[in-house]
Amino acid sequence: MINIAVLGYGTVGSGVVEVIETNKGMVDKKATHKLNVKYILDLRDFPGDPYESKVVHDFNVILNDDSVNIVCETMGGVGAAYQFTKQALEKGKSVCTSNKELVAKHGPELLEIAREHDCNYLFEASVGGGIPIIRPLNYSLTAERIDAITGILNGTTNYILSKMEREGADFADVLKEAQEKGYAERNPEADVEGHDACRKIAILSSLMLGKNVNSEKIFTEGITKITAADFVYAKEAGYTVKLLARAKRLNDDETLAMVAPFLIPKDHPLAMVNDVFNAVFVTGNMLGDSMYYGRGAGKLPTASAVVSDVVDCARHQGKVITCFWDKEDAKLADIGEIEKTYFVRAKISVRQKVEEAFPGGKALTVGRSEDFGYFTGAMKEKEFMAKYEALGEDVLSRIRLI
Amino acid sequence: MINIAVLGYGTVGSGVVEVIETNKGMVDKKATHKLNVKYILDLRDFPGDPYESKVVHDFNVILNDDSVNIVCETMGGVGAAYQFTKQALEKGKSVCTSNKELVAKHGPELLEIAREHDCNYLFEASVGGGIPIIRPLNYSLTAERIDAITGILNGTTNYILSKMEREGADFADVLKEAQEKGYAERNPEADVEGHDACRKIAILSSLMLGKNVNSEKIFTEGITKITAADFVYAKEAGYTVKLLARAKRLNDDETLAMVAPFLIPKDHPLAMVNDVFNAVFVTGNMLGDSMYYGRGAGKLPTASAVVSDVVDCARHQGKVITCFWDKEDAKLADIGEIEKTYFVRAKISVRQKVEEAFPGGKALTVGRSEDFGYFTGAMKEKEFMAKYEALGEDVLSRIRLI
Repeated sequence: MINIAVLGYGTVGSGVVEVIETNKGMVDKKATHKLNVKYILDLRDFPGDPYESKVVHDFNVILNDDSVNIVCETMGGVGAAYQFTKQALEKGKSVCTSNKELVAKHGPELLEIAREHDCNYLFEASVGGGIPIIRPLNYSLTAERIDAITGILNGTTNYILSKMEREGADFADVLKEAQEKGYAERNPEADVEGHDACRKIAILSSLMLGKNVNSEKIFTEGITKITAADFVYAKEAGYTVKLLARAKRLNDDETLAMVAPFLIPKDHPLAMVNDVFNAVFVTGNMLGDSMYYGRGAGKLPTASAVVSDVVDCARHQGKVITCFWDKEDAKLADIGEIEKTYFVRAKISVRQKVEEAFPGGKALTVGRSEDFGYFTGAMKEKEFMAKYEALGEDVLSRIRLI
Repeated sequence: MINIAVLGYGTVGSGVVEVIETNKGMVDKKATHKLNVKYILDLRDFPGDPYESKVVHDFNVILNDDSVNIVCETMGGVGAAYQFTKQALEKGKSVCTSNKELVAKHGPELLEIAREHDCNYLFEASVGGGIPIIRPLNYSLTAERIDAITGILNGTTNYILSKMEREGADFADVLKEAQEKGYAERNPEADVEGHDACRKIAILSSLMLGKNVNSEKIFTEGITKITAADFVYAKEAGYTVKLLARAKRLNDDETLAMVAPFLIPKDHPLAMVNDVFNAVFVTGNMLGDSMYYGRGAGKLPTASAVVSDVVDCARHQGKVITCFWDKEDAKLADIGEIEKTYFVRAKISVRQKVEEAFPGGKALTVGRSEDFGYFTGAMKEKEFMAKYEALGEDVLSRIRLI
């Protein structure tokens, strides 16, 4: 029997208990051990809950119980969660987590502690919710040099953009509705400003490179400036707008990492990823493109990923599962030096100025009298931005093309 | 160092050698061992080939060399490949294969022999080419009861259907062109009649159930009767036509397994899988839908999957990797008893007869004078087929709806 402690009895933590209970026989068989939830750590009590008797308030009860083999950290944050994870690993207890913030910030350190204590730190649920992506990168695409990863990694923003596209609605209105439905937080900044996607691409790109990608150094731009009008032009030109988290090897030394809204062609596989779904598009040097698609959030999908980590730990008791993510920082490219093409929307009155600023591009009209669209040629980001900003308030928006 | 023998120096076999060579440092690191191709078994000689000196003609050289740890079986067929695989496993040499025919036919037996000899029989490349799907099913979706798997598993037929849709061309013309381009075999039966997809869904559904799904018992229908006219109606109704390989749990005892062309809505994730790409759509009871997409064939993608198996074997030398696929046969449902809706295309002259045969359906016209389309209500397959056949030659085609 393998004893499990769940840290945090919130959405994901209670989901972990539910998944283990619902699929009991099957999960035990896959784990090649009977799994037993022995403790649930939470500050609160849960009178009447079927697992009421398992609830403890002191982490030391778990830490000092040698019969606990695996800890599921579903608390979130980088304070207590960090301390508890470290302590558990130092005692040789494997830790399975959904905490992307902690993984992005302390992943390589915690992996090292796990290795030193013959246990494992697994984090399938930290990216893409229930979509298997960490394990495919670590176990499946092992014959590949992965050259690029492009993900739709945040369900809230993808829901908002999908709805804006479908209904021609504006950002603020859709955000408000998403908040009312519980699809967006009351403080939506981490989602809509791209920080959540940034942490996730930091994790994926670290695994891609085997080095550490510092999430604080990743260029990150959110979706708050995308408008209904932008979608009108995007549609006319055969595109949609998605918040993409990208990592791309430029050469042996340098990697581009960024989070921003992009225009992508409607026939790109990522364009059909709508609403709260997530997807990760991976390009390898032998395999070419592959994509992993599914529910990027939600209680049971996320919990399912945590439990798949528990199964993996149970199968590998006392053995270290291979994961390459060194502490050495990866060198990230200066985004200003990267060439791209850009879509610009501007007041009709400055059409000539826009065409002069970005010669060789292509105008796009959709029968609107107030503005027009323009696709620039390929140019470095810093040159584009300088010219864009010099045009002042008459240019209304800009979106990068993939 | 891990010594490898490659059986068959054809497309996939030479790809295996190329992947190991091209990504050498990286693959060795992931394998946690240096990989060395020691032998290549082929009946032919390869004068001038950089691996010429590794070529042997007698399998016993490989079998009796105790320093060979892993055998890559890329010969195909169920004759010599079966004997060699069995003998290698009995000697404790792990075998990695791309041979779907052999895996579908003898998978559980070979897995058992591997288990008994503390080695592994891995077959990631047997389904979906380079798309990681076997390992996600075995290692990632371990917290799920998988309820359904729907795949586009054959690149040749998907290429043909994509081209028919895009160009309004007829099956025979596109097949001829695909043969000229090398996308279809000169004898295309295994692809266009669905046999290849059938073997692959037999493998996937066996892993889904943990029991053996006999490919010979899977209802299989190919794409040879799909016409350009069918695509005209499909498009008008918001559908496309795909050859789908499906397995679905009906209850604890019975599973539906079939291969056939289906009408699927254009906004279904599988609808955007075009040309030679493959995808596997998996539905779990916790995670819901997830999808795995990529190149389902080709030298390097398939070889990449074989090498990922080699890496897995290298990491698990002397240890058996968990895989549930018992010899016990799974019970497959009688397809005649399954309810579905159907699209029928018939001569305009028999419109009344069709509407009477399938009351409660819905007609679809696209401005063609020679035929019309009709969607039936939900009905059992055997009832539909009886009525369809009774209508005689004036009904031109029928396609199931997903």
